[in-house]
Amino acid sequence: MRSIMFKNGVLYALDSSRLPHREVWLKLRNANQVASAIREMRIRGAPLIGVAAAYGLALEALKYRGKDANRLREIVLKTSEYLKSVRPTGRNLSWAIDRCLKAIEKEGAVDGIKKRLLEEAEKIANEDVETNLKIAKNGLEIIMDGDKILTHCNTGGLGTVEYGTALGIIRVAWEKGRRIFVIATETRPLLQGARLTAWELKKYGIPFKLICDSMAGYVMSMGMVNKVLVGADRILSTGHVANKIGTLTLAILAKHYGIPFYVAAPFSTFDFTTKPQEIPIEERSPEEVTHFAGRLVTVKDVEVINPAFDITPPELISGIITEKGVIRPPYSENIPKFINKS
Amino acid sequence: MRSIMFKNGVLYALDSSRLPHREVWLKLRNANQVASAIREMRIRGAPLIGVAAAYGLALEALKYRGKDANRLREIVLKTSEYLKSVRPTGRNLSWAIDRCLKAIEKEGAVDGIKKRLLEEAEKIANEDVETNLKIAKNGLEIIMDGDKILTHCNTGGLGTVEYGTALGIIRVAWEKGRRIFVIATETRPLLQGARLTAWELKKYGIPFKLICDSMAGYVMSMGMVNKVLVGADRILSTGHVANKIGTLTLAILAKHYGIPFYVAAPFSTFDFTTKPQEIPIEERSPEEVTHFAGRLVTVKDVEVINPAFDITPPELISGIITEKGVIRPPYSENIPKFINKS
Repeated sequence: MRSIMFKNGVLYALDSSRLPHREVWLKLRNANQVASAIREMRIRGAPLIGVAAAYGLALEALKYRGKDANRLREIVLKTSEYLKSVRPTGRNLSWAIDRCLKAIEKEGAVDGIKKRLLEEAEKIANEDVETNLKIAKNGLEIIMDGDKILTHCNTGGLGTVEYGTALGIIRVAWEKGRRIFVIATETRPLLQGARLTAWELKKYGIPFKLICDSMAGYVMSMGMVNKVLVGADRILSTGHVANKIGTLTLAILAKHYGIPFYVAAPFSTFDFTTKPQEIPIEERSPEEVTHFAGRLVTVKDVEVINPAFDITPPELISGIITEKGVIRPPYSENIPKFINKS
Repeated sequence: MRSIMFKNGVLYALDSSRLPHREVWLKLRNANQVASAIREMRIRGAPLIGVAAAYGLALEALKYRGKDANRLREIVLKTSEYLKSVRPTGRNLSWAIDRCLKAIEKEGAVDGIKKRLLEEAEKIANEDVETNLKIAKNGLEIIMDGDKILTHCNTGGLGTVEYGTALGIIRVAWEKGRRIFVIATETRPLLQGARLTAWELKKYGIPFKLICDSMAGYVMSMGMVNKVLVGADRILSTGHVANKIGTLTLAILAKHYGIPFYVAAPFSTFDFTTKPQEIPIEERSPEEVTHFAGRLVTVKDVEVINPAFDITPPELISGIITEKGVIRPPYSENIPKFINKS
């Protein structure tokens, strides 16, 4: 089942923020609605955000009733900038938008632009599924029978169009008969691990236990984990990985205990120009930390630090699993070798 | 203001589980009620649990209406065993109970036993305040002007009779004019950091920010922390420290970034006989993780790991701040030197 679908001029997206209690499908009809859904993390996961943004651009173009291709192009460009700004850290969002813009570069007619944008969005969505299956297949190389895998946040079918990245590997490894056990971190503040990863793992019948994020050191110290596998929101050519807040903590713990730490992501997550210190780290609303289900859980007016991401340096990463294979360190040397690989 | 007080045959204790929204005072009249309050973490913090248990023993003795000293002694012993079993990891609980039992060793009369038990509980409570002030004074040695201190869980006046251990140092340092800044972890699953430490820090006017536990790596990587200061539930003669789950994770992160990691605790937290692998780690109810403010936040029937504590090995600890001074590594050598120090 896909988590996003375009049908009769409407974009249907499963509302992640309502899971696991309710399966609500959002009906999105323009770029603004798509942007809001992304901002509110109803649509989340770097690859899925990219796909949704591409559809958002198409929706906005489809709304245009005029005949002026230049005017439509202006609308598309303005919408592109707006969509890109919604969540700055993840790479796939701007990657998908840029790809759509490129697709219409040589289109002169209004209908052609509309058609091309929708086609490109569909293509990005379909490719996401194929890419994830390739990542999963390549990931089998590092998943052994008996593995006890710790994963963070949600990197499954709910954060992509289908299958997922890190969780896609886990799912396919399980389906291929690898007897694995998963430890899922709850992933504060928005509990994507407790809400989404637990929901997926249960659905697939994969044995797992849920922990609070702070327990990662404990489970590693007790020998309950022999591999860490996470996704990524942006990967630099140096091998620096921006991912859900808490990833860096897990990588340091894994290093301390000599546990291999793997990242799984498609090449659409790679950013070959930005430097580590230039990655924009999105700071989200304090209420995500101070409130739960609308209830204040601390004192009033408390100041909060709420970065949505952190950056894990390459020296803590054992390998990056992509659709083109598993990239090993040194990353500055090996990532370029994979770029043009088929 | 003390968080526990005995008055007219009733033990009054501030209900930590209701803070910060409501200040509810429990009225406890027997050992069973004290045990329940400890089990439900309405009374928490290793030193405070010790004091409450001592009072619980006295309450139970005071209830006895007979004249048979041997019978009363039996009741006291049975109650002692029961109270000790309520929370197995913390040291102060059994330390306080044993001290009370020792106090009545030579008492032959019912009234004498009752009187001695209550006196001993009062003494333990008063000593806790004095001890904490000494810890705070000794802690000033390691707190510098401009320090950015990360602390975990609640180690303040709410987890002791008054002042606290790690947070007591922070409070006194602030009162002495040290310009410090605190980062408080929310401390899942029960949010003692968000609920209690934030409440105390705000009351004392100490500047601070709240973070989710998983953000510790991020704040350290950004240079926002130059010292970590936590409490302890049990300290072995080897320097191993059992403390609130998540402490080990913080210690490993601090080591990675070269940030000094300090533990503050009274000698009543020390255990000179148990070996590291023998420390009983209390596993608490899965609902603490699966539910947030009474609401299920994950899928139904999910399995959970919920240890209340973890064990930080001595090589990660820069110093242990006690009422007798700051103990430095090597602990196996230096802890014994401090035992008989006045």
